[in-house]
This record gives sequence, C-alpha cells and structure tokens, in this order.
Amino acid sequence: MSASDRPQPAPGSPPPPRGERAFIRNLRSAGLVSPAGAGGVPFGDDMAGIDPAAADLLWTTDMLMDGVDFDSSRHGWRQIGRKALAVNLSDCAAMAVRPVAALCAVALNNGLTPAAAADLVAGAAELGAPYGCPIVGGDTNSWDGPTVIAFTVAGRVPPGGRPVLRSGARPGDRVFASGPLGGSILGRHLAFDPRVELAIRIAQECDPHAMIDISDGLSVDLAHIAAESRCAAVVRAEALAALVHPDAHALAAQDGRPALDHTLHDGEDFELIVAVPDARATAARRLGLHEIGRIEAGSGVFLETADGHRTPLEPRGWEHFR
Amino acid sequence: MSASDRPQPAPGSPPPPRGERAFIRNLRSAGLVSPAGAGGVPFGDDMAGIDPAAADLLWTTDMLMDGVDFDSSRHGWRQIGRKALAVNLSDCAAMAVRPVAALCAVALNNGLTPAAAADLVAGAAELGAPYGCPIVGGDTNSWDGPTVIAFTVAGRVPPGGRPVLRSGARPGDRVFASGPLGGSILGRHLAFDPRVELAIRIAQECDPHAMIDISDGLSVDLAHIAAESRCAAVVRAEALAALVHPDAHALAAQDGRPALDHTLHDGEDFELIVAVPDARATAARRLGLHEIGRIEAGSGVFLETADGHRTPLEPRGWEHFR
Repeated sequence: MSASDRPQPAPGSPPPPRGERAFIRNLRSAGLVSPAGAGGVPFGDDMAGIDPAAADLLWTTDMLMDGVDFDSSRHGWRQIGRKALAVNLSDCAAMAVRPVAALCAVALNNGLTPAAAADLVAGAAELGAPYGCPIVGGDTNSWDGPTVIAFTVAGRVPPGGRPVLRSGARPGDRVFASGPLGGSILGRHLAFDPRVELAIRIAQECDPHAMIDISDGLSVDLAHIAAESRCAAVVRAEALAALVHPDAHALAAQDGRPALDHTLHDGEDFELIVAVPDARATAARRLGLHEIGRIEAGSGVFLETADGHRTPLEPRGWEHFR
Repeated sequence: MSASDRPQPAPGSPPPPRGERAFIRNLRSAGLVSPAGAGGVPFGDDMAGIDPAAADLLWTTDMLMDGVDFDSSRHGWRQIGRKALAVNLSDCAAMAVRPVAALCAVALNNGLTPAAAADLVAGAAELGAPYGCPIVGGDTNSWDGPTVIAFTVAGRVPPGGRPVLRSGARPGDRVFASGPLGGSILGRHLAFDPRVELAIRIAQECDPHAMIDISDGLSVDLAHIAAESRCAAVVRAEALAALVHPDAHALAAQDGRPALDHTLHDGEDFELIVAVPDARATAARRLGLHEIGRIEAGSGVFLETADGHRTPLEPRGWEHFR
C-alpha cells in the first residue's frame, strides 16, 4: 500500500508539481479520504484500519503492472504472483502485523494461457502458506492490455501489540535497517522474503517508535518517517557503507553509478527501517539490525560524513503519477 | 468480486474451454485457494470471510479496466470512480452485508490530469458516504496503459444476521428479482444504486436461502445460484415480460435483438436475485420484489412458457478469460 513498488528508481529531478504524494495530500485536504481509520492509523501509512469494532484488523492493497513492476517477457508467472503477494506481506511487516488472508484481483492479458494464470496464483499461494495467509477470494478479468495484479491482504495485530506507524519517531531515536540495500532489480525484487517475523520480534522487544518497509528507496522511505513524525533523520555515511548489498556493487559496475547511490535510492529492497528509542538499541542489535543513523528535531533527511559534515539527502526513489 | 462486471455481454457461444469459471474450479481443485473462508463462505461467492476470529467481517474486490468496464473517452471520471466502488457495494448487497470501509488501488494512465484522478476518487467517496463506507487507504500507480481501478470493500454482517450465500437455495423456493432488467449499457451500469438497504431488509424479513447481484446477466447469475445450490431454476417467461426495463426496449430498437434477450442476458443491472422459501413469498412481495420463477430438484436453468413448455436457458452473459 502507500508507496508503490518498482524496480528502477527514476533519476533525481526537481520536486514534482504532481505525483503520488501530492495527490494523497490533496485527497486528504479535500476530505475525500478518511483521515484516520480504525485504530488511528493515518491515511497513507503502510496499512489502514478496517473497522473500529475490529481495531486489531488492518488491511493493505498493492497493484502491480506488467512492464512496470515486473516483465512477463523475462519473469516467470510463478515469480510474478509471488511478488504480487509479497509486497503486501511486506506492508504487514512494516506495521508489525501478522497477515491472515488475501484477495487476488487480476486483469489477465488475453494472450495468457490458463496454465500461466494458474502459475501466477500458485506463486502467491506458495508464498502465503507459511505466513498463514491463504487466498480466500478475488476477481478474475481479462483484456487486451498488459496483465495487472492487485492483491489485498488483511492482517491482525499480535495479542498485546499495536500497529507500528510511520509517524511516531522522536528526537534521540536510533535508526536501524534490517539488511543490506541496493541493486534489487538484479533479481531480489522478485524473490525477497517479507520481514514479518522479524517485525513482530522488533515490536515485542524494541518498543519501535516508527517503522516502514523500503519499497521506493531508503532516501524516500526514511523521508516518509521523518515527514510523518515531524522530525529530521540523519544517516551516517560510514554506517551505510557497511550496508551496500553485493547487488549494488554489481549494478554499479554495469551502470557506472556509485554503489552507495544504489543503496540510498534503489527501491524494492523490502527491508525494514525502524526508529528505536536509545534504551532499546541493544535489543535491536541483538535482532541483527544495523544502526544507520538517528532522529533529530527539525525536518528533512541528511547524510553525515565521519567528520560531521552534513548534506541534505534528496529523496530520489520512485514516485508514481509524476 | 467473483463475477466480473462489463457493459456489453458477449453473444452466445459454445461452452468455454477456458474461462473464469473453469479457472476458479481449477484453483479450487488444485488447493491453491482456500475452499472456505471464515464463516464458511465458499470461495467464489460474492464476498469472502477475512478471519475466523472476526466471523462477521467479509470482504470483496472488483477490478475495472478502461475500455472494458468503462470508456474514459465517453464517461466522466466521477462516474467511473462511482461505478468502481458501486460494483463492490453491490457485492455487499448480494450477501446482505453492510459495507464499512474501502481501499482504492489504481493504475492511472499517464495522460490523466491530477484533477481527473481526484474526480475518480471523489465519485467513489461521494457514493460511499451515505453507505457509511469511507475510503481508508489505497495504492496509487501510473503507467502508459489504460487506467485500471481495483476497490476492495469490507462489510459487516448486521447484528443477529448471517451472510446470504449463493448455495442455499432449495426445491420449492420462489425466485424473486429486485427490479427491471436489460439495457444497462445505455447508462445505468454507471449510475445504479447498490441494493444494500433492500438486501438487509430481505435478510431480516424473508429468510432468503440464496442471493446474488446481477453483474454478468440474469441467465448467468441465476445459473450460479442453481449450480452452487445443486438445484434447477425455472424462470416463467410471462413473469419476466413484466421485468423488461425500458432500456431493454430502447436497446432492442437499436440492435434488433428481442428486448427479452437483453433482460435475460445483459450484465450490469446490479439488481438482486433471491431464492425465498414459499412461506416468505408474501414478505418478499411486500418489499417490492418481483417473482420470476422457482427452484426445483435437478440442475440447470429453464425458461417456461405459460403453457408449461420448457427450454434450457443457456447462460449467455459475460465471462472473462475465455
């Protein structure tokens, strides 16, 4: 939900006059969407409340399009179906919510064989099974256009827990990432494992103030936490250097951009970014999280070198409808 | 959910070697989808259960594509957004469930203006408001393809009620329709009012054994009730003649097909078909429902003339992925 998922981040460009974020801001201010769903989850977070009478149930939806989020001329339908569900399970992880069921709506290109369509569903069903997330319904359509897949997933806040929002980070919090970043387009964007179990342990052991999954890129998604929490986020370049994924190096060798650029701006890593109070930093490290920076008073996202020099970190990940 | 929604029914053709229904049967038999969700709603009904721990919450999803379910070169975006939510509210009506919230996933064509995109959401929000169904979240995407809209709606079974399935009809039941049928493509498919309140009254007063909304056409949707209930359905031609919508006559004048054909086979009327026990026929009439036939032992759907002559009523509504 919220941020859209796409392999190739667009290169830096001036702030969009249109764009997904402005669109959502406009919907909010025009009163066209519910400012706060059940459980007080703000519109635009990774999941939304369903019904005040079932406050521990949340849901999310993600739409994937052929030629944008996957390429059916290169990727298998099983992989594609897997990804279409996985991006939703990653939204569950971002809220520390356990998925319970999925709906699958598809517009299948008329050229698809029934076997390919079944593979699509099989890939999703196989991913969902160990997460306890069966496909319980859906809508099957066909057309001449490219195949479009929209899964919706409902999830339940674990007993005694609460959904972890983007908006709760506070000055003094440490910022952690759950794994190395960059170059996911080389294949990981299709095959990643949503961090649901890790997220639930984070919620249980680290008192996280804010969490998000990296779908649009570290720079964009950390900016979401900063903006929604009305704080600034500072990333230490040194710490980040240790988080450069081997795929980021491989991609850098192909396209000549620095590997660190890929780590900062590539989308679809689907690792978690978490803001944790200082007192729980040890617990976070024990879970294998990597400290990359901190939350401060102010606004914006900054990259800080070892000598203390700061530069604004321009969000350069992917944004739709721009 | 389930059946797909489309203005123009395809003309009669031999039983599909592929198709949405076969596809769903295959998914069921391959164990790829959950055979029964929470509350025992079978896969493929108008809505599905979300979670056994919240058995009175159901959900549904419908995907609409430009050029198939609407035509953005002729229809306004407000109308289109309205329809995209309305088809889901009609699924709620089909189960006698009250909608509580919606998610909106879109792939917007890159040519859309921000104002058009906001109109789309506004049309849905305006429809949802009096139904108590706010838009609480979603996913905004853009691409070069035609615009695709997938709403997901959750609904709650009214206190003391139960979801009305397609599968509970029994021999001896009377079959009712909630309004005149045919020719919806002339405009009603965009502007219909989902029969939520009527459906809830039907559930409270008529002990309905089975219910469905007419999305694919009376012949197809009544066949769903017959097949899922393992019964036959008989429609009286005489009764049906009184249900021919003025739009069916208008369309007949344009295309030369009999108006009754449009009443039987056109999709997107979004009226309800209900199987009611004989003892509740009076209650059904009091709600303004029109009796059109009855349920019998056996299988299939038949059209019966006043002299008792029967002919099989071939399902000729729309089916996707065929």
